[in-house]
Order: sequence, then structure tokens, then C-alpha cells
Amino acid sequence: MKPDNRPIGIFDSGIGGLTIARSVSMLMPHEQVLFFGDTAHLPYGDKSAESIKSYVSRIADFFIDNDCKLILLACNSASAAAYPMLHRLHSETHPVLNVIDPNVEYAVKQAYKTIGVIGTKATVTSRAFNRKFASAKPELKVKSIATPLLAPMIEEGYFNNNISQTIINSYLSNKKLDGIEALVLACTHYPLIKNEISRYYAEQKSNVEVIDSTDVIAAYTQKYMQKHKMLAAADRHPEHQFCVSDFTVSFQKTTNIFYGEAVKLTHVPIWG
Amino acid sequence: MKPDNRPIGIFDSGIGGLTIARSVSMLMPHEQVLFFGDTAHLPYGDKSAESIKSYVSRIADFFIDNDCKLILLACNSASAAAYPMLHRLHSETHPVLNVIDPNVEYAVKQAYKTIGVIGTKATVTSRAFNRKFASAKPELKVKSIATPLLAPMIEEGYFNNNISQTIINSYLSNKKLDGIEALVLACTHYPLIKNEISRYYAEQKSNVEVIDSTDVIAAYTQKYMQKHKMLAAADRHPEHQFCVSDFTVSFQKTTNIFYGEAVKLTHVPIWG
Repeated sequence: MKPDNRPIGIFDSGIGGLTIARSVSMLMPHEQVLFFGDTAHLPYGDKSAESIKSYVSRIADFFIDNDCKLILLACNSASAAAYPMLHRLHSETHPVLNVIDPNVEYAVKQAYKTIGVIGTKATVTSRAFNRKFASAKPELKVKSIATPLLAPMIEEGYFNNNISQTIINSYLSNKKLDGIEALVLACTHYPLIKNEISRYYAEQKSNVEVIDSTDVIAAYTQKYMQKHKMLAAADRHPEHQFCVSDFTVSFQKTTNIFYGEAVKLTHVPIWG
Repeated sequence: MKPDNRPIGIFDSGIGGLTIARSVSMLMPHEQVLFFGDTAHLPYGDKSAESIKSYVSRIADFFIDNDCKLILLACNSASAAAYPMLHRLHSETHPVLNVIDPNVEYAVKQAYKTIGVIGTKATVTSRAFNRKFASAKPELKVKSIATPLLAPMIEEGYFNNNISQTIINSYLSNKKLDGIEALVLACTHYPLIKNEISRYYAEQKSNVEVIDSTDVIAAYTQKYMQKHKMLAAADRHPEHQFCVSDFTVSFQKTTNIFYGEAVKLTHVPIWG
């Protein structure tokens, strides 16, 4: 079998998706990652589905022009709004994966009767999780709330302190989440506050499993690539590339929060 | 003198600038306001100066196409990044006002020796306030810090509660602001947390004047229009128009926070 050494295109609205890029590159060190963060339009959480579709569509062309073998939408808002369109347009030549399917596949295998989902307004309003859960396991009750302040809070470095814990507690004490047995972190920023979320439930003496999607998504991607014989040669140590549609020093500084180490951002001014 | 009944174009990156639109329409009830919120790109606070210039430039064309007599950049990030360019391009036919000059003009008349400025990263990084203060009153010491979480916090309805007070206290206790006698609220969202900011200083027993720019800016705009004979006829009760580059139900719902009453947003898809 001939290895496929083309890069994996990983997309996010900003740089939160670097958590997924990191997880993918740790799990599959021979794969080259081409990351694109649409910092010109971030955050997607407040944007309409129509706008998100138009942005994602343009960036998919960028991945295809750069010979990516696979496109991973590492952003829940983008997955919710634009995955069906992207899959329809490109999947015959370029498989498209999203971050919702892996979480749903994982969660429906567990014994939960009631599951919670937190994410941006765009993700929650789309009801993409509700539809996918309803289709995979109709008896599962899904309770979702938008938690729009969490992503900017994390981007500004507010986590593991009294401010972040206050905001997290305020959201999670919402009665709409009462009775959940697990909580899906449906935003690529949230792995950074997983411990604080777990601490909230521990203090409440609630037995709620917090589903950190990062590893689930990387494993799903690997399994997909194995099945479709898309893996790269095992002797490679490729350099990754990290592109953004708008460049600021602040974005550059924040990369290490999400990627675990500083990476060099390249400005690709798709929108001029 | 013939009255000038053309609309005033008021621009913001989102809908926070509705605080200025409100103040202008209350002070000059005969004037028609054409508001444009660039919700497709909001927030500007994290964007580069180059991107902000390109967005603002396109929206200035919209105001000119819609026969506005004056363009008011009711957004500090936009004023900091794009005002000089816009002034250079259009001021001969369409005067352009920004929200930095009125605050600087007001503050230099007071007896302050040290003044603080809080705003977005784009506003603070630009050093536009520092430059303007240095030019108007070189002996005034200016201390500025970026407070990027405040705008999303307010947009999500978090003010006058323990979360907002915790975040505000965290920012204002920054040692970089030590010794200020006044604080300029250099973001159109911040008037909504003026009371909380004042409360922080009262609790600290610090005598810091909090400069709410909204009324200062409206008065500056009125004075400019009087001086240049641009006022509308005094018997008019025009209907205002509120446009956004991206429409979501959430934006629509939030208008009343900033404008004091709900207004109907019209989607003008400049960017498709």
C-alpha cells in the first residue's frame, strides 16, 4: 500500500482548534498538519449560519489548493453550520470530517439516558447535536445551553482562577442542565477548562462525566484514515504549517495556550 | 440657512455603538440616524489594523452611497485603526468624526495629571489615545490597559452581577492603573458598566472620575454640526435605520441593552 503523505487540513474559526491539531499530531506523528484559523472572522459563535458557510467554503478551497488529503472541521460552530454543505461539495475527492460525529458516536455507546451539551450560540442554536443524537439513539434526552462567554474568557487567559470558576459555576448551575449524566464540551476551547468543570460537579457531588472531545476526535480521525488507507509513511517527521486569515501579535502569543507550545503563525490574507 | 436633512451615518463593529446612536438621537431628535453594525466581522478588538481599515473603508462607501452628511465612527477600535485613513479619503465631501477626539478634548480641559484608558486590544495597542493626549497636553501621564473580556461580558448580559464585578475588579486592580485621577471608558460597550466601575473606586476609597464618553461624543457631534451648519430642520421626527452586515436573532434581541429599547435590525449583506 502506497502511503499518502499529503497534509491533513485542520480548520478552526480562530486558534482554539489548535487543541485538536495538537491531539492529532501527537496521535499520528507522521502526519503533516496544515492548520487554518479564520481569525479575520472569529469568533463564529455569534455569526449566522449563512456567513459561516460562506467563510468555511472559501477555506475548504484553500485546503484543496494546498493538496490536503482530508479536511477536519475542528470547530463546533463550523461543523454545525457548514459540514453538510462541505461534505456534499467535496467528499468524493476530499473527505470532510467534523467534530460533532465523533462525540455523538462516543456518547451513544455509553449508558447515559440524559446528556448535556455546552457550546457557542451558533452551535447550540443549530441543534446539530440534538438532531444527530436523535438519529443515533432516539431515547437519549439531550439538554443543551449556549455558554458564549467561555471561549473569550479562555482566549484572554482566564482559567483556573476565581473569575473563570465563577463564570463556569454560573453557567453549569442553569436548571436546564439538571439531571445530566455526562456533559459534551462542544467547543474546541473548552478542554482547557475541563478540570474546572469537573471540579464544579465534584463540589455538587454530582456524578457527571465530562467528555473532552479532543482525544475522541483525534482517535476518530485516525480510525477513518486507517479504514480508507490514507495514512502517511511511518518514517516521516513532517513540519506542520499554521495559517491565519488575520495576523496580530496577540494571536501569536496565544498559540501556546492551545497548542501546548508556541507555533509560528503565517498570515494568509484570503480576504485581503 | 437651508437645513441639511440627510442622515448621520453612525458606525460600529457590532451593536455596542447603539449607545452612541441613542445619545445622538436623544440630543438631536430632529436628526435621522443611519446606523451600521459590522456584525459579520465583530468584534474588532482582536483584529489587525489592516483588516479593520479594509472593513471600515467599505462601510464608509455604504454611508456615502446612502447620502449621509457625516460619518461618526462610534467604535474606539475603528477610530484608532481607521480614522486617519477615512478622514484623508472622505473629509472634503463627507466629514468624519471619531470617538477618541471628543474624549481627549474633554479630558485635557480638566486638571488631571494622570489619566487611565481602558479598551479593546486593538484600541490600546494602537496607542491612539496616547498620541492624541501627548499632542494636546504633553505633561499628562496616560496609563492604558486592554480589558478584552469586558465587551463580550456585556454583550452576554453579564453586568450588575457578581461575575461582572469580579471581572471588573480584576482588571481595575492592575498596578498599571495605579495613581490615575480619571478613567476613560474607551469602548462603546462600557457605559453599561459605568456604575460598577464607579463602585469599584468607591470601595477602594479612590477619587477617580469615570469618563462616560457617550454624552461627550454626542455633544461634540452636535457642536461640530452647528459650527458647520449641518443641522436638520427642527420640525422633523425622522425614523432611524439600523443595519447590520450579518443578522442573527441574538443580535436582534440584544439591541435593547444598548439602545434602551428594541430596534429592528435590517440585514445589509455587504460581504455576501
